[in-house]
Amino acid sequence: MRSRLPDAVLPQRVHIIGSGLIGTSLAMALVRAGISVSVADASPTHEALAADLSGAMRGAVGAPEVVVVATPPDVTADVVAGALGTWPRATVTDVASVKRVVLGQLRARGVAGIERYVGGHPMAGREKSGAISARIDLFEGRPWVITTTAETAVGGAALVMGIAGAAGAVVRALSPDDHDNAVAAVSHVPQVAASLVAARLSELSEDAVGLAGQGLRDVTRIAASDPLLWTQILAGNAPAVVGVLRALTDDLTRVVEALEALSENEFDERAGEAGAGEPGEGESRAGEPGAGDAGAGEPGSALAPGARRVLAEAIAAGNTGHARIPGKHGAAPAAYTVVTVLIPDEPGQLGRLFQDVGDAGINLEELNLEHNLGQPFGQLELSVLPGVAGELVETLAARGWRVHD
Amino acid sequence: MRSRLPDAVLPQRVHIIGSGLIGTSLAMALVRAGISVSVADASPTHEALAADLSGAMRGAVGAPEVVVVATPPDVTADVVAGALGTWPRATVTDVASVKRVVLGQLRARGVAGIERYVGGHPMAGREKSGAISARIDLFEGRPWVITTTAETAVGGAALVMGIAGAAGAVVRALSPDDHDNAVAAVSHVPQVAASLVAARLSELSEDAVGLAGQGLRDVTRIAASDPLLWTQILAGNAPAVVGVLRALTDDLTRVVEALEALSENEFDERAGEAGAGEPGEGESRAGEPGAGDAGAGEPGSALAPGARRVLAEAIAAGNTGHARIPGKHGAAPAAYTVVTVLIPDEPGQLGRLFQDVGDAGINLEELNLEHNLGQPFGQLELSVLPGVAGELVETLAARGWRVHD
Repeated sequence: MRSRLPDAVLPQRVHIIGSGLIGTSLAMALVRAGISVSVADASPTHEALAADLSGAMRGAVGAPEVVVVATPPDVTADVVAGALGTWPRATVTDVASVKRVVLGQLRARGVAGIERYVGGHPMAGREKSGAISARIDLFEGRPWVITTTAETAVGGAALVMGIAGAAGAVVRALSPDDHDNAVAAVSHVPQVAASLVAARLSELSEDAVGLAGQGLRDVTRIAASDPLLWTQILAGNAPAVVGVLRALTDDLTRVVEALEALSENEFDERAGEAGAGEPGEGESRAGEPGAGDAGAGEPGSALAPGARRVLAEAIAAGNTGHARIPGKHGAAPAAYTVVTVLIPDEPGQLGRLFQDVGDAGINLEELNLEHNLGQPFGQLELSVLPGVAGELVETLAARGWRVHD
Repeated sequence: MRSRLPDAVLPQRVHIIGSGLIGTSLAMALVRAGISVSVADASPTHEALAADLSGAMRGAVGAPEVVVVATPPDVTADVVAGALGTWPRATVTDVASVKRVVLGQLRARGVAGIERYVGGHPMAGREKSGAISARIDLFEGRPWVITTTAETAVGGAALVMGIAGAAGAVVRALSPDDHDNAVAAVSHVPQVAASLVAARLSELSEDAVGLAGQGLRDVTRIAASDPLLWTQILAGNAPAVVGVLRALTDDLTRVVEALEALSENEFDERAGEAGAGEPGEGESRAGEPGAGDAGAGEPGSALAPGARRVLAEAIAAGNTGHARIPGKHGAAPAAYTVVTVLIPDEPGQLGRLFQDVGDAGINLEELNLEHNLGQPFGQLELSVLPGVAGELVETLAARGWRVHD
C-alpha cells in the first residue's frame, strides 16, 4: 500500500537523540544542509564526539521542529514517547529498522500526540558502528522509508521527508506492516539463508571447502554479519520474518521430498536413463516408462513422477523473483551484456584496463572480479548496456586484453 | 579423504567424446599443449564446429591413450562403458558434475576394465553452452577434481592429471562420495537457497522490492540460473543434496520456532523491554524477569527463554562457516581491509581510480561496486592486505577521491 506523500519541507531546527553511526551521520548531513542541529546522548562522551564531528550543538537548543530518535531499537518507543511529551509541538521520528512494533507500543500505552509521530527507516549502515564511524554521505542514494498511518499529521511527514532529502536519501512511503514484510523478504530472510548455508560448511574437509566458487562466495558474503546486531533485528521483526520463513520452509520441504524421491532406487533409475540407448544390455528397469508426469524426453523419470518438475519449478520461481530486483538506478533490471577480461594479478593492471575502458567512453553498469585458484590472474566481468558491448570487446582486444563476451 | 596422487603424465593422444562447451574448450587447450586431439559428437554439425574451433581432428584417430567423455551427465555412464570396451587399453575419464552415480552405474552393470576409469569433474562453466561458447582458458585456475578408488590404475590417474594440468586447472583428489558431498554443500545447496529466497520476492509490491540492497543482490545472483540444467544437476546428486538440505531444514526450523516464540505476546514483551528504563510508567510486564536463559542484559527475554540465543547461535554458526571459504589464491581467507571510494557514475572515473591505485603499487585482493539508488555515483569497495590500507587511503585522498576505511 503506497501512502500519499506531501511535498517535502525542510525544518529549521532538528534535535537528534542518540549519537551512534546513524545519529551522528545524520547530524553531519543536516548541518551541511544549513539546518540548526542539536545532538543528545545518554553518554556525555558520545554526545561530545558527535557534536565535534558534525558541528552540531550539544543538548536540545530551543524548540526543535523535528526530533529524530536514533537510539538502539529496543528503547526507541520509550524515547519517542518521552520526546512527544517533552516537545508538545515537535514532529518526532525514529530510525528503527522495524516499524510495526514501535507503533504498537506507542498505541498500547496510549501516548498523547501520537499524530506527531512519523515512523522512519533510513536503509543505510556500515559494518562498523558508533559516532567515530559516521559519514556525511551515509544516506546518499539510499532508500529512507517513511511510515505513516491515517492518524499521522501530514505536516510532520513533510518535515521528515525534508530531513531525508537533505541527507541525500530517496524517500519511500509504506505502511508499517508493508515495511516490515518488505524488509523481512529483502533483508532479514536473505540474512538467515546466507547464515544457514554458510553454517553447513563447518563440517566439510579442507579439500571439500577448496571447491568453493564465486557462487558460494556471493550467497554467503553477508554470513559474516554481527550475531548480536542480527539477533536484535530478527527478534524485532519476528512476526514478519516468520511469515516469509514459513513459506520458504514449505518450498524447501517440497524440494527435499522431490530429491528424496529421486534418491530412492537411484542406481536403478540412473541406469534406466543411461541405458536408454542400449535397451538390450540387460539392466533392470523398474517403473513404468511414460507413466511419469515429469516426462519431456527424460527416460527414467517415471520412477519419481513429478520430482524433476518440482525442482525445475523451484529454480524457475527463483528466476522470476530475481528478475524483480531493481537495477543500478532503481529502475527495472536492464539486460546487461557481460564482457569478461583476464587480468594479470599485479599492480597497475586494473588501472590500465579501466583507462582503456574510459578512453572508449563506455560506462560500466556492474563489475565483478572473480578469483582464480592458485593462478596469477583474475577474471573481471564488466556489465555494460548491450549496445556498447561489441565496441568494448573490440577496443579491449585491440589494446591487447584477453577478452570474451 | 585425500587420495594419494601420482605425478602427472602428459598423454600423446586424447580423444574427446562430446562437443559442447567443456569438450570443445578442452580440445582447444590440449591442442595448444601439443597433444594430438580428436573429437567426436553424435551431431556431425557440432563435431565439425568443435574441430574447426579447436584444430582437433574429427573422429577417433589411432588408439587414444585417454578418452574424455564430455557428454551430458545423463548418458555419461553409458558412454564411458562404451569407450572402455572400444579402446581396451585407454584410460577413460569423464566431466560429469556428480561422481558417485556414474561409478555406481558402471559397477552395477559389471563393466570390464573399470580399473581404467578415472572420474573427473572440471569445475568450470559459463552461463552459455555449446561449442560456440568454448574458451581455451575455460579451465585456467579452476579446480579439476579427480576421483579414484582402490581399484583405479595409478597410471590412468596420472594421465588425467596431465590433461587437467595442460588445461591450466588445479587438480584436487577426492573420493567419489566426498566429491558429491562437497559440491552439494558448496554449490548445489547454495543454488537451492538462492532460488528459494528469490522466489519469495514474487509476492512483494514494487515499493517493497525497491528496498532491495546489495545483500539481497549477492544472495540471489545465482537465482538467475537455468532451471533445466539445475534440475539435472540436483537430480544427479540427490542423496548428497538431501543430506545437506535436511540439516539446513533442521537449523531453519529452530530459527522459525525461536521467532515464533518471540512473536507471541510481541507487544507485551517489547513494552517490557522499552519500559525497562521507566518502570513506573504502568505498562504491564508479563513474564518473570531473570528466569530466561537468553539473559545477558536483555530485559524481556524471559518471555521467550532461549529464543534470542538460538538466533545468535545461528548467525554465529554462519560466521564460522563463512570463515572457512578460501580466499583469492586458494589459501585460507586473509583478513583484508576494506577501503570504500565514492565513484562518480561517468566514463573514465574507474580508470582514473585504478590508475591511481596502480601508481601507488598496491595490489587489490577483491573489489565490489555497490550500486546506489537513483544517485549518480557508486561505492567501490577495495579489499587490500591490512598493511597497505593506510597507504591506499592516503594516496587516494591526496588525489581527490572521497575515501573511507
